[in-house]
Amino acid sequence: MQIGKASIKFEEPPVIESMASIVGKKEGEGPLGKLFDVVEQDDMFGADTWEQAESALQKQTADLAIEKGDIRKKDIRYLFAGDLLGQLIATSFGTVDLEIPLFGLYGACSTMGEALNLGAMTVAAGYADKIIAMASSHFATAEKQFRFPLAYGNQRPFSATWTVTGCGAVVVSKHKSEGIAAITGITTGRMVDMGYKDSMNMGAAMAPAAFHTIEQNFEDFGVDESYYDKIITGDLGEIGRTILLDFMKNKDHVLEEVHTDCGIEIYDQETQDTHAGGSGCGCAASTLCSYILPKIKDGTWKRVLFVPTGALLSTVSFNEGQPIPGIAHAVMLEHIG
Amino acid sequence: MQIGKASIKFEEPPVIESMASIVGKKEGEGPLGKLFDVVEQDDMFGADTWEQAESALQKQTADLAIEKGDIRKKDIRYLFAGDLLGQLIATSFGTVDLEIPLFGLYGACSTMGEALNLGAMTVAAGYADKIIAMASSHFATAEKQFRFPLAYGNQRPFSATWTVTGCGAVVVSKHKSEGIAAITGITTGRMVDMGYKDSMNMGAAMAPAAFHTIEQNFEDFGVDESYYDKIITGDLGEIGRTILLDFMKNKDHVLEEVHTDCGIEIYDQETQDTHAGGSGCGCAASTLCSYILPKIKDGTWKRVLFVPTGALLSTVSFNEGQPIPGIAHAVMLEHIG
Repeated sequence: MQIGKASIKFEEPPVIESMASIVGKKEGEGPLGKLFDVVEQDDMFGADTWEQAESALQKQTADLAIEKGDIRKKDIRYLFAGDLLGQLIATSFGTVDLEIPLFGLYGACSTMGEALNLGAMTVAAGYADKIIAMASSHFATAEKQFRFPLAYGNQRPFSATWTVTGCGAVVVSKHKSEGIAAITGITTGRMVDMGYKDSMNMGAAMAPAAFHTIEQNFEDFGVDESYYDKIITGDLGEIGRTILLDFMKNKDHVLEEVHTDCGIEIYDQETQDTHAGGSGCGCAASTLCSYILPKIKDGTWKRVLFVPTGALLSTVSFNEGQPIPGIAHAVMLEHIG
Repeated sequence: MQIGKASIKFEEPPVIESMASIVGKKEGEGPLGKLFDVVEQDDMFGADTWEQAESALQKQTADLAIEKGDIRKKDIRYLFAGDLLGQLIATSFGTVDLEIPLFGLYGACSTMGEALNLGAMTVAAGYADKIIAMASSHFATAEKQFRFPLAYGNQRPFSATWTVTGCGAVVVSKHKSEGIAAITGITTGRMVDMGYKDSMNMGAAMAPAAFHTIEQNFEDFGVDESYYDKIITGDLGEIGRTILLDFMKNKDHVLEEVHTDCGIEIYDQETQDTHAGGSGCGCAASTLCSYILPKIKDGTWKRVLFVPTGALLSTVSFNEGQPIPGIAHAVMLEHIG
């Protein structure tokens, strides 16, 4: 079941059995607004601080995925989850009440890909009948952690992305003949550092990692872009997408038609002032659970390569003049039936 | 192979094939000083910043584990690694040059337990022939991240622990009849929040999580403390140990003799002024790879329950008045032969 250098093909593909997406007001006003399960108008999610708000968001989304799937909480054996914050505080506090064994993950905005990689491996190996894979981000916690206090009202360059307030959670179950989508394979990324240093252009920092993982997936499975109905990156945004397409073209792969990006889909750039697109690990996770998985379920897309992309930005390393390495993890999602 | 609520027993136990430990000067002066592979006298590890120093430490330790095992780097299929810093910058930057697919993990000081849990699962399932599990911490990066600038020279209460400058890395390989130790089972912890808020007494914050995971291990495998030659927690220190023993006693388990703690073993409290003991994810990881594994290899201990413990402290959540939840992941290590 190992295949190639960094990929696994599952003989009995695990199945996404349930999904849930909860987002904030701005995301609800975007092109995918009607597709999310819940659009919360209160960006504080009823909590006292932004961080507690993001924790509440994770808790509510996990609960909703369990409820929508008509699953008992005690049947979820493991939780694979993460967020963008130092020491994963949204996840740590958000998952206490779930009382499920937790693997805390950090892959920046690639975290939903990392969670699906490990979650699918765990289920396919028979270690669990059901797991939850989940990732969240919150505009206000991310701005506070990585950039400026919101009250500064700082200007943003056009290359900047807008951190999505949102969370996506899926219940992954062992192989069966029905469900939302099958996870047929995975390609695990490695750190890629091209020396890129502009924290206001994260798409450019992540594009080389996305390129590397997609190339590796093609190589490991002996396929190319024609194998997929869609190749969907996490949050490259418009600038990252342009770089990815250029890199791919140098290897004779034409991705213009087949590629899209969650960060491009989630906001309307004309009207929402989000510049290069959406970002944050909640971007790929919530877009997966609202826009992508339903299209795989209804057969619009038969085969999708979902590639959440992460930029390992930290204020400490950035202030010390370090570059921003990237990572991307790919998940092969297929229509069932 | 699932067993009980949160444990796995491996039918063909993966084997720790190689190990490496690198620590700083202070750790080299402690009771385990002669057992570490390298005691680096330069706390900067030849780098320009503390964070780059910790990255260099990770890189050197991974390289040494590969070299000591006479293994080719390209035979390592995955890296499961983490550190204490926001956005895992020690790991992110430290592992770029390894060019190995990476699962970035955050479990605070329990990270080596999390890495061994997932690494052993991955190898036992046949997804990889060899993986590296690794965790690091650095006194100076941790103080900067969580407490005060070193130059303040702040006073520390006696309940405080001292973050270990150190890294431990193991190569875990598929089942075979020789090696340093077998990983026969694991018990994965969940977040435990008892409302504890004193960031200068992390042992107390982690003890409930250690208790929960050890109890779960006993229950899942139908064993008690008599089954193990040693039960070794990560970095509870003296105060956390006392609380753990009290908790266990309430459940009629007497751990006084069988229990020790990496944070207690690594420093000499009489002479090294480290107060309650060592901490940091490098504490459990470097003690494992210097003190614990050799004793399992030579048969001094036949069965060890290794339980790295993590306190999910963050300056943001702490400053907002939040408690410090804990988590602990257990690994069952056995003598081979």
